[in-house]
Amino acid sequence: MDLLEKVTALAKRRGFIYPGSEIYGGLAGFYDFGPLGTELKFNIKQSWWRDTVQLRDDVVGLSSAIIMNPKAWEASGHVSSFSDLLVECKKCHQRFKAGDFEGICSNCGGKEFTEPRNFNTMFKTFVGPAEDTAATAYLRPETAGGIFVNFKNILDTVRVKIPFGIAQIGKAFRNEINPKDFVFRTREFEQMELEYFVRPGEDKKYFEKWVEQRFDWYKSIGLKNIRQREQAKKERAHYSRATTDIEYKFPFGLPGQGWQEIEGIANRGDFDLKAHMKSSGEDLSYFDEESKEKFVPYVVEPSAGVERILFALLCEAYHEDGDRVVLKLNSKLAPYKVAVFPLLANKPKLVELARKIYSDLKKDFVVAWDDRGNIGKRYYSQDEIGTPFAVTVDFESLENPPAGGDVTVRDRDTTKQVRVNIGELKNYFNERFK
Amino acid sequence: MDLLEKVTALAKRRGFIYPGSEIYGGLAGFYDFGPLGTELKFNIKQSWWRDTVQLRDDVVGLSSAIIMNPKAWEASGHVSSFSDLLVECKKCHQRFKAGDFEGICSNCGGKEFTEPRNFNTMFKTFVGPAEDTAATAYLRPETAGGIFVNFKNILDTVRVKIPFGIAQIGKAFRNEINPKDFVFRTREFEQMELEYFVRPGEDKKYFEKWVEQRFDWYKSIGLKNIRQREQAKKERAHYSRATTDIEYKFPFGLPGQGWQEIEGIANRGDFDLKAHMKSSGEDLSYFDEESKEKFVPYVVEPSAGVERILFALLCEAYHEDGDRVVLKLNSKLAPYKVAVFPLLANKPKLVELARKIYSDLKKDFVVAWDDRGNIGKRYYSQDEIGTPFAVTVDFESLENPPAGGDVTVRDRDTTKQVRVNIGELKNYFNERFK
Repeated sequence: MDLLEKVTALAKRRGFIYPGSEIYGGLAGFYDFGPLGTELKFNIKQSWWRDTVQLRDDVVGLSSAIIMNPKAWEASGHVSSFSDLLVECKKCHQRFKAGDFEGICSNCGGKEFTEPRNFNTMFKTFVGPAEDTAATAYLRPETAGGIFVNFKNILDTVRVKIPFGIAQIGKAFRNEINPKDFVFRTREFEQMELEYFVRPGEDKKYFEKWVEQRFDWYKSIGLKNIRQREQAKKERAHYSRATTDIEYKFPFGLPGQGWQEIEGIANRGDFDLKAHMKSSGEDLSYFDEESKEKFVPYVVEPSAGVERILFALLCEAYHEDGDRVVLKLNSKLAPYKVAVFPLLANKPKLVELARKIYSDLKKDFVVAWDDRGNIGKRYYSQDEIGTPFAVTVDFESLENPPAGGDVTVRDRDTTKQVRVNIGELKNYFNERFK
Repeated sequence: MDLLEKVTALAKRRGFIYPGSEIYGGLAGFYDFGPLGTELKFNIKQSWWRDTVQLRDDVVGLSSAIIMNPKAWEASGHVSSFSDLLVECKKCHQRFKAGDFEGICSNCGGKEFTEPRNFNTMFKTFVGPAEDTAATAYLRPETAGGIFVNFKNILDTVRVKIPFGIAQIGKAFRNEINPKDFVFRTREFEQMELEYFVRPGEDKKYFEKWVEQRFDWYKSIGLKNIRQREQAKKERAHYSRATTDIEYKFPFGLPGQGWQEIEGIANRGDFDLKAHMKSSGEDLSYFDEESKEKFVPYVVEPSAGVERILFALLCEAYHEDGDRVVLKLNSKLAPYKVAVFPLLANKPKLVELARKIYSDLKKDFVVAWDDRGNIGKRYYSQDEIGTPFAVTVDFESLENPPAGGDVTVRDRDTTKQVRVNIGELKNYFNERFK
């Protein structure tokens, strides 16, 4: 098995990621996240939100609706041009995204294809009490649109001063012609997007700042196989003044092409606000109290994909050490922070003390419990899901009540074991999770 | 203004809730959540997740896709019968939900209507590379479906023993004929759902347990105007063995009808798993290792609406005290926990110390900063958004460096002020937020 197969197998086996609607044969491009995937995803989002919104003074949050007034997507150009090139095999009528197309139909081997044509990848739906009179609407293909549409609301109701940002985490949908590469290119996914509004002329400075800050953030959550790649002019949208991708070296793609985007940082100028001003008739300019100037801000947009980051983290964290498989996840992202075991499941006193420690730790951390099989197996089982520490309660732990004896604390990455006094356990972990 | 008007005006004015796509004239049934609404919503969800999943030993989490294989909704009966009765005014062709219908068209005054007919309220979309060949799919009308469809995956990949639950928080969509009552009946909303699987015969016991636990949870987050209401047989779905609603007394509805559902707890028997077994051909029964029995579990479903809870919380928390408006939100849900002010904004030493305290508190809590206008106005401004405590740094605070002097801590609900030593601030708040 190659790394990709190993990671996807582990993700399924341990309840991180399941194929969507699996008992009904699945649905291409959709995935469900199991108990561990849900916690991991939550921790990624929580970490981004804390660093991007809560710890900063210049960014506020937003949660706009997935279904917006369709005029918003007409204004932004998505209705007319959010599309991929589609080709169709003349023999079996299978459809392919032109960029993925390698000359021979992967379904039937056919070699003749239709001319490429545009296919709009926004999902359509109908809002209103009956289809014939209902308005066609779209599932948002990105969360950013909701931010621009609420720019005026934020100016009117929150004290913000340029430069400032509006951040959003939420689902987005793209009807990909060929979803592929596990959770890398899916039809339903979550984005973490920031629109950072600046004075025109200061956009270059803040663009560079955000590229560095976002790159550092990935390092802070434990990704090492990353790089920055500046997009060439021809790759960029016409309004983009600069775009830098943060790429991770995934274990897939053609040889030498494992580098894939997990986040794009774009200097979008005033394209979006101007487009919405024109279509909505609202004034989306900013009035600077100090200089008494009025202007339409420029915007720098760091836009990240949650599932891509999760996938990169699983790839980066996956290690084999003899027959031991270990996910070396950053402890702030790991689904469980600590696991607690009684040495033997059939010794009530050990179980009782272990339960007590488990319940107590649970007030502060997300904690796993395991009393099956032997200790070695339990360690391996926790290693495989990335639990940073395991606590084993043994007979020595029963000594010296009520302050208690000590327990074995085993480190996931080094497998080293130390004895820690029961009363000191919380401090011990708090120190290590700082 | 009545309470409803006051709450909705405050929600807009202070950035809790905006009409969706407002600059484009809105979109009926869709709302956007501003900076404070986003934090409040997050805190509600986080509190539910912690109490329902992380602090329990018998519940695991899940995040399934919004778009599922349509066969799942055929199996559950949603495609054939998830519908409302629709009537149409013969004069102006406005459409109404039959239940809301009071004999005279609210649009034109017309008195003649078509016969009621079924209108399926699932939003439709098309998945795949071109509309003509694409599969019709649906936006999930509830998150529960994704839980039943993943029942087997959970059994296969996670150690769970009956009784156990699978919990999910996520968006759901219903194409309501007449969305109304602010965020009470919307077309896009978030649910917090738990499916708790039990041995047949033990369903009644666990149903009653969950009704009590969920009722207590609402009390724990500060809702007082709540009651339990058992649904009569004719109100319940045919498969439901019992349903109890938890209702909040909202400031809307016909006289005496302000009680509205914020959560329903249903004893659903084995209806869902059996329906999916039949349609998918998969075996969704549970094997009990101890008794060596195999059976299809019964399920108890507590299902809550996030926006309804948020709305109820705003109504409950809203108080007037002379010209002071105060949101008495439970401190664990309040968007900001503490606000920090320098007494005077033009005294650099006060500002410097206040910034230091602000930055320090921010490591542990979500903290607001305000240095505009006078202190009284700042207190009122924080009262209105529910910030439990405000810290004012004055000239006495500058005394006794480096340990520091003390600051004024003002309590939102009592408006009482106490002096607290700067070094003790964190402990002071930690104690109060316990």
